[in-house]
Amino acid sequence: MSKEIRTVGFVGLGVMGNPMAGHLLAGGKRLLVNTRSPQKAQNLLNSGAEWRESPAELAPDCDAIITMVGYPTDVENVYFGPKGLIANCKPGTIFIDMSTSRPDLAVKIAEAAGAAGCLALDAPVSGGDLGARSATLTIMVGGPQAAYDAALPLFQLMGKTIVRQGGPGAGQHTKMANQIAIAGSLTGTVESLTYARSAGLDPSTVLLSISSGSAGSWQLSNLGPRMLKGDFAPGFYVKHFLKDLRIALDAAKFMHLHLPMLELAESLFTRVSNEGMDNLGTQALYCLYEKGLA
Amino acid sequence: MSKEIRTVGFVGLGVMGNPMAGHLLAGGKRLLVNTRSPQKAQNLLNSGAEWRESPAELAPDCDAIITMVGYPTDVENVYFGPKGLIANCKPGTIFIDMSTSRPDLAVKIAEAAGAAGCLALDAPVSGGDLGARSATLTIMVGGPQAAYDAALPLFQLMGKTIVRQGGPGAGQHTKMANQIAIAGSLTGTVESLTYARSAGLDPSTVLLSISSGSAGSWQLSNLGPRMLKGDFAPGFYVKHFLKDLRIALDAAKFMHLHLPMLELAESLFTRVSNEGMDNLGTQALYCLYEKGLA
Repeated sequence: MSKEIRTVGFVGLGVMGNPMAGHLLAGGKRLLVNTRSPQKAQNLLNSGAEWRESPAELAPDCDAIITMVGYPTDVENVYFGPKGLIANCKPGTIFIDMSTSRPDLAVKIAEAAGAAGCLALDAPVSGGDLGARSATLTIMVGGPQAAYDAALPLFQLMGKTIVRQGGPGAGQHTKMANQIAIAGSLTGTVESLTYARSAGLDPSTVLLSISSGSAGSWQLSNLGPRMLKGDFAPGFYVKHFLKDLRIALDAAKFMHLHLPMLELAESLFTRVSNEGMDNLGTQALYCLYEKGLA
Repeated sequence: MSKEIRTVGFVGLGVMGNPMAGHLLAGGKRLLVNTRSPQKAQNLLNSGAEWRESPAELAPDCDAIITMVGYPTDVENVYFGPKGLIANCKPGTIFIDMSTSRPDLAVKIAEAAGAAGCLALDAPVSGGDLGARSATLTIMVGGPQAAYDAALPLFQLMGKTIVRQGGPGAGQHTKMANQIAIAGSLTGTVESLTYARSAGLDPSTVLLSISSGSAGSWQLSNLGPRMLKGDFAPGFYVKHFLKDLRIALDAAKFMHLHLPMLELAESLFTRVSNEGMDNLGTQALYCLYEKGLA
């Protein structure tokens, strides 16, 4: 497993996948790509990447294959669908799903990979499109140590904080822990600023008093000012956050774990989604409170 | 109002008030003190402070009087009780309540102060006993600009981030906004680490992946590790945080504001209190989840 990974397949070239794949190419890897909307690959093809018509056609030629798609159903389709990766890979391939997806699906992929003589890692990221472009992503990895060691040079081309958290699924579980912490500080940010506004304070001035102490959070410092400016452009989409909250909630239920704040956040973001704000950034939760719908 | 404040009264010399009063003394002010347990004043008396038997006996001799007591009922008693400040002050006195208390009580004090020819500020703080000792408190001020300008030299002896947020009650409302943001990130921290532990991860390793990105918060970085070490010693008492959550909830109800995360936090901390953890630190919320009582 310590042999160098030379040829990398990359499935899913959206706002995250495209710059991540670009870093691999810039790092000297041979890059085979496939994505649902071919025009999204054009910049990479111009730089030397090779197009493949489906995951199945990409699979046989790769030492490692990275997937970065939207939803668990997309992950399932890319790995197990009729033109999927697993049935068409060569033994020894290392699969790396960097999508945020279900921990149990990561385990299923790892088992199927093993049966095909391959290894799999789940390696979701945080840091957003900015982190993807600047190669400063946090990468949370689950899977066998040997696969992690082999894939580490790839991760280092894309990210900064790279930690193996355990066996298959551990990367996804860590990402869920990340999203749960976000849910808390984001909800706290929204209710804090809603309270401040209702009390007749200037919420921007309130931020001067509360951002740097024990109430401080990334969400308060970064999304708070955007809420107050009415800037709801997506850094991170409502629809994707809601997907994550539901994955976390399902996993918690499976563990017989009652997480009432997570439940509350899921129900609030369901309402944000129902209000037609799926394609806004997560800071749009503030609008739900402004409308008195929380 | 721009004449210099030379003689300061200080009522309430607990873990916060004692070091704050000490900074005023070190800053050259004449200091008259009263507190419920006289032995808590001893270090200050040794350094030149003068003891007074009650707020009433302290009031007539002061240019400004700072109060730093536990609960709104204590505030009410110190200002309006039989041996209270208001009935015994000299005109022109500036009252500064630095306790975390009810915004409507701050307004009531301001009105009573006005009727007595005095001015009042509400000026609660954040930063804890550490911030009090190191004179780095954040001070959130409500009240008239003239009183703020006169009191600013005192605030500068005790704090670092000092912001006037508006008229009477604005300081207390800002502190409530602070506590609401804390409630969110603290609850998120606890549920994140509870999830991680239940999923079989090492929560300390998870912190390496999630502390520095968009999930990051003061609560996660500072209280998360204490939860995992089983260190529930009070930085900030459960009983005081519960008091604050209830003040915020009452104020929100008065504004016809529905803040479901705040409600949830109040109900969780009521259970923490009912489990006998009043005198532990707020990170003891983690125990409630460990016991499966959340």
